[in-house]
Amino acid sequence: MSGPPAPRPRAREAGLYIPGMPTGMHNAITDVPGVRVGHSTLWAGEGPLFPGQGPVRTGCTAVMPGDGDPFRAKFPAGVHVLNGFGKAIGLPQVCELGELESPILLTSTMSVGRVADALLDHMLRLNPSAGRDTGTINPVVLECNDGELNDIRGRHVGRESVCEALRAASGGRVDEGVVGAGTGMRCYGHKGGIGTASRVVEVPRGAGDEELWEGADHYVLGALVLSNFGAWEDLRVIGAPVGAMLPPPPVAPEGDGSVVVILATDAPLDARQLRRLAARGALGLARTGSIASNGSGDFLLAFSTRNRVGHHLGGYRARRDVFIDGHPGINMLFRAAVESTEEAVLNSLFVADTVVGRDGNASPGLPVEAVLDITKRVREGSDGG
Amino acid sequence: MSGPPAPRPRAREAGLYIPGMPTGMHNAITDVPGVRVGHSTLWAGEGPLFPGQGPVRTGCTAVMPGDGDPFRAKFPAGVHVLNGFGKAIGLPQVCELGELESPILLTSTMSVGRVADALLDHMLRLNPSAGRDTGTINPVVLECNDGELNDIRGRHVGRESVCEALRAASGGRVDEGVVGAGTGMRCYGHKGGIGTASRVVEVPRGAGDEELWEGADHYVLGALVLSNFGAWEDLRVIGAPVGAMLPPPPVAPEGDGSVVVILATDAPLDARQLRRLAARGALGLARTGSIASNGSGDFLLAFSTRNRVGHHLGGYRARRDVFIDGHPGINMLFRAAVESTEEAVLNSLFVADTVVGRDGNASPGLPVEAVLDITKRVREGSDGG
Amino acid sequence: MSGPPAPRPRAREAGLYIPGMPTGMHNAITDVPGVRVGHSTLWAGEGPLFPGQGPVRTGCTAVMPGDGDPFRAKFPAGVHVLNGFGKAIGLPQVCELGELESPILLTSTMSVGRVADALLDHMLRLNPSAGRDTGTINPVVLECNDGELNDIRGRHVGRESVCEALRAASGGRVDEGVVGAGTGMRCYGHKGGIGTASRVVEVPRGAGDEELWEGADHYVLGALVLSNFGAWEDLRVIGAPVGAMLPPPPVAPEGDGSVVVILATDAPLDARQLRRLAARGALGLARTGSIASNGSGDFLLAFSTRNRVGHHLGGYRARRDVFIDGHPGINMLFRAAVESTEEAVLNSLFVADTVVGRDGNASPGLPVEAVLDITKRVREGSDGG
Amino acid sequence: MSGPPAPRPRAREAGLYIPGMPTGMHNAITDVPGVRVGHSTLWAGEGPLFPGQGPVRTGCTAVMPGDGDPFRAKFPAGVHVLNGFGKAIGLPQVCELGELESPILLTSTMSVGRVADALLDHMLRLNPSAGRDTGTINPVVLECNDGELNDIRGRHVGRESVCEALRAASGGRVDEGVVGAGTGMRCYGHKGGIGTASRVVEVPRGAGDEELWEGADHYVLGALVLSNFGAWEDLRVIGAPVGAMLPPPPVAPEGDGSVVVILATDAPLDARQLRRLAARGALGLARTGSIASNGSGDFLLAFSTRNRVGHHLGGYRARRDVFIDGHPGINMLFRAAVESTEEAVLNSLFVADTVVGRDGNASPGLPVEAVLDITKRVREGSDGG
Repeated sequence: MSGPPAPRPRAREAGLYIPGMPTGMHNAITDVPGVRVGHSTLWAGEGPLFPGQGPVRTGCTAVMPGDGDPFRAKFPAGVHVLNGFGKAIGLPQVCELGELESPILLTSTMSVGRVADALLDHMLRLNPSAGRDTGTINPVVLECNDGELNDIRGRHVGRESVCEALRAASGGRVDEGVVGAGTGMRCYGHKGGIGTASRVVEVPRGAGDEELWEGADHYVLGALVLSNFGAWEDLRVIGAPVGAMLPPPPVAPEGDGSVVVILATDAPLDARQLRRLAARGALGLARTGSIASNGSGDFLLAFSTRNRVGHHLGGYRARRDVFIDGHPGINMLFRAAVESTEEAVLNSLFVADTVVGRDGNASPGLPVEAVLDITKRVREGSDGG
Repeated sequence: MSGPPAPRPRAREAGLYIPGMPTGMHNAITDVPGVRVGHSTLWAGEGPLFPGQGPVRTGCTAVMPGDGDPFRAKFPAGVHVLNGFGKAIGLPQVCELGELESPILLTSTMSVGRVADALLDHMLRLNPSAGRDTGTINPVVLECNDGELNDIRGRHVGRESVCEALRAASGGRVDEGVVGAGTGMRCYGHKGGIGTASRVVEVPRGAGDEELWEGADHYVLGALVLSNFGAWEDLRVIGAPVGAMLPPPPVAPEGDGSVVVILATDAPLDARQLRRLAARGALGLARTGSIASNGSGDFLLAFSTRNRVGHHLGGYRARRDVFIDGHPGINMLFRAAVESTEEAVLNSLFVADTVVGRDGNASPGLPVEAVLDITKRVREGSDGG
Repeated sequence: MSGPPAPRPRAREAGLYIPGMPTGMHNAITDVPGVRVGHSTLWAGEGPLFPGQGPVRTGCTAVMPGDGDPFRAKFPAGVHVLNGFGKAIGLPQVCELGELESPILLTSTMSVGRVADALLDHMLRLNPSAGRDTGTINPVVLECNDGELNDIRGRHVGRESVCEALRAASGGRVDEGVVGAGTGMRCYGHKGGIGTASRVVEVPRGAGDEELWEGADHYVLGALVLSNFGAWEDLRVIGAPVGAMLPPPPVAPEGDGSVVVILATDAPLDARQLRRLAARGALGLARTGSIASNGSGDFLLAFSTRNRVGHHLGGYRARRDVFIDGHPGINMLFRAAVESTEEAVLNSLFVADTVVGRDGNASPGLPVEAVLDITKRVREGSDGG
Repeated sequence: MSGPPAPRPRAREAGLYIPGMPTGMHNAITDVPGVRVGHSTLWAGEGPLFPGQGPVRTGCTAVMPGDGDPFRAKFPAGVHVLNGFGKAIGLPQVCELGELESPILLTSTMSVGRVADALLDHMLRLNPSAGRDTGTINPVVLECNDGELNDIRGRHVGRESVCEALRAASGGRVDEGVVGAGTGMRCYGHKGGIGTASRVVEVPRGAGDEELWEGADHYVLGALVLSNFGAWEDLRVIGAPVGAMLPPPPVAPEGDGSVVVILATDAPLDARQLRRLAARGALGLARTGSIASNGSGDFLLAFSTRNRVGHHLGGYRARRDVFIDGHPGINMLFRAAVESTEEAVLNSLFVADTVVGRDGNASPGLPVEAVLDITKRVREGSDGG
């Protein structure tokens, strides 16, 4: 095999019926205006593992939270750690200040140090005075362990890969599956990786505290996952216990792994609300079968593209729109977070085809036909068949 | 209607197929040796609400964590707050010290103050010197809002009800559904309340750090829920999207509410591990469809009956068995927490029959036949029908 | 002794030099416009303890966060738990929603259940529809253990006491020391209780994100403490190691106890920022000598009187002023929190005179002359004496 | 200036009277058996800043938690974040698992990525199978911002520096002040850097739960700080308000910065208790004057050298000694944490002499004579003069 397999159809494209709220135009995190995604995929060699040489099945994925430099105009953000067995960088500051001030990079576990360093290079180029007059920069890097397929000790994701992912970032359709940070990941005993999905939320305006608003506002919530978790028998596809019904994968699977969930929205949520949103992402993972096993580093980060905070404000205060927790609209956003996370995981599985990695380890693509067959029968059954 | 409806069959008894790990003898939290459950059910009046008079559809449920006085021999415990919109009492101290030192009482939201006071009465009777020489006692009371059916402002759960629940506590089969604290609760648009379930975990001993162990140890993990949450269309029964397929309940449902999950185990987990276990309970809620809506106070508390800590130890240290996080056995316990919580919610729905409460508000029992029909067809479909 | 001792002069009135930022007009939490404080003091009997009968040395203190009903117009709020060995009620919801929706009551540990129930009575009278259409109310009650002087098991603080404290709430000068919830408390081996202090913060406006502001804005930050903590030898008075230099109190002191700190401000801080503010209160406690001993329930709650949130908003969003974390003004508020907390503890000690309670237990007033003598000599020494 | 200034005497050596518990033999974190400290100091160039070239005033400090490979025998550990404005790496996993599995490295903010990567190199050499069969490794790196003196953008701390610090690690006396990670740090407007101190705690054995113990056990608690925080006017030296009494430093000081506190003990504390211990370190910082300003990343990590956890245990459980929270001994350890942290900060200030860094920025050594003069007069004053 000379390179990553071609992407397969996404879950809906393949025919999976997914109930719920309407999706955005691309059914992707990039449906949130300003959000862009870029990948750098590293693929080299075959056969036995020689640490430092390969085989290489890894990469880097960049999520740009919005237009312009995130350091100069930061994004409200919140974090939920479902299971902290992971090596993410940059989260304590996001929690304290409720702000995201860098692109978000996803990569292979052991590469986080190098990738954070390269991301800092990028941010310093954009901010020549940072570290001089303007203090420090908080790069955010999250990871999963691709060591089953990849020469993880070789830490092949470096400066070039980071630059490529950042440069490649664009809106519109997002490449999924065996791409970027997802290149070497496994999920529920099958090949996983990158997946994304989105939901559109219609919030009736009603009467605000100072004025009357008519009509409704539309917000988008998008999820992007790096899926590398779950025991094969636990997989549920829109409720159907698919994992337990498929033949077991050839290699004895273990449930450990990790998952990263990035949630983006243009609804004006503040840091506290975004933390609540991130916590709902965990419920979306549970819908796919997650038990958050001990060794799975399950991190969720949510940000809003609204109410950005300037790095150097002249004044001490600013006027902000804030979303009211008590309004039913917040539940629509919570539901969108659950649904988007669930579908993003499914997309990562549907799109990713089989990959053979180091030592001939094979991670089989989800047997889509069998899955669709099960879910179709289940659905017909449930319809009264 | 002169009293609570008779309990209906539990989910498995009714014919629902529930895959997964084996259950304990009673499929109840009381399968954990020493754990006992007691209820006090308050039911009076019909018709329009007169706050302070009724109608009354409420009660109190006691979970005794083990034999003897929990104050003198405390239980390792941990807490997970999925959504903090609730009025639980006693949790900060459980989190700080990692200990439970009182029975756990569940009740109606506005009654927590009175119930905590009554629980203190009980504890003080057992400990004549408490508040004198031995410091204070930390009563733990959790709650859900039964105001849709019950005269919640009347706060009818008081000293007598608490005493009755404590006295009634026993092992073996647990009454579920419309009983105790569950009397006035609703769940997924139907009548909810008390539910329980358990799993047996077999952990191979392997070689310990000091000796060789042969064979395996068996532990029990049990869940008890007070279910009062969820939008009707979200209900999933063992994966099947039952909620969306049932006819909508007569009254416009809203998703808010609350849920309490108590997890007990005889595995020797410490406070940190029990917090991790409690967090897995949230994944079990998600399996039933929860999105943890804004107004839902979703609290989970886990305790172990092993390694109890004496209130007055002569020495400053003690020898304890501890469970190793890195051993696969921890994942079995995590899975047991997910499965038990899911099934306990289902039991609360299957057992609880229709209740008419204040102002004629009706909370319909889950249409069990229709649900079984759907899940049976789903299952036959998934089997290849 | 027929009643509580007369209050003694406050720290500054007694001649203690306290450096730092300027105080508000009353050097009290009530300097924050709208904040009111009321007390109910219970004092009865002498001699040996007969649980349920007395002697009684206890009470209740109410902090009203602002004008009008806090349930209908809630206050942004945040919590910091320095040491969770305490029985406070209502904090999980404050943390989740970032809102305070009731008056804050302080009382004796074992009375929290009754006091929460009585506070609910009060709130329900104000909100006849609560528990019916508008959901539940989250009463906030914090406590310390006055069992050394008081018949704590008797739980003498009830409905009347709560009503009295709420009715008595007023602005202006605040009664301190042996009053309200402070009646039976001890601090650093001496008599403690209620103390308060405030600071005025001047924040230069600078250029805001949309307009130019000239001049500066003034904000007030006030602290109120219920002091019941600390080992006598640890007491520091404006840095001077007074505790170790005073003769030990007659009764063998122990360091355990508890402390409640309430911080109020009219600066437009949101919930996340108020949590940060509350955490700084802990540094103020440390300045007086606290080591946050194991048995000390040390809870800090901060709220803002700005940007109140209506219970029933017609719309889903609102415009708010927010304070920018990156502006130096936030550090002024942090410093004000540290200083106010420190001085509030000192005021509780200076004002409280000796109390003899149950079983003849005596809690001696801080020997003010000796303390002033030490601090004066220290100050002269440090000035070059 | 061709290199770092010679260290000056430590606080006690200089004549400062420090009351409190007895110190360990070296009054250093290395008094905890097995704990070793090593430094690598980078110093090059003078004059104007040319990013990437210098001047260089930085370094790396390694704390080895105990003998042998920490990955194969992990250390119970807990974390407290006083203020999360920092870029520490590795903390989420420490919090989740309650374990430290790598040496702890301290360095310059922007170098954390490179240093983490180099630490991983080191760990991988020790564990050839890591990333292959044994999963991942969690390197822990903490930082402060030395950008006022150092070419922080140049990120001069790399592989060689890390190796040197690790190799140099040894027990016994610890180099302090302008050394290792402390080379370019400032504290309270003066030169800061590395400081350490320790306390010996004598815990009476009493009667344990299974046997009678006579006599007492002795434990050591040590602190090591990387001090880079505080506004000059806030400095307090053993209570004396020294900062406000010294002439202001030449350059307008700002309070922001950061501080890292590492606490080590051979008392058998578990992860929950170590988190509590770490929180007490924050009270020690407050004693020196800290208000935890907005921009100060204040991180505290505590570990125990007892009850190490093997990476590959054959069995699922182990027998452990645990410390009882309710025993007064825990307060002795809390007090030791407060005192050690306070004195470690003072040592960092006393030992560090003036450093001139990039752009001629000077960070003056604390004027020790003046400080001693003030504290001596204060002490004589307090003794009755």
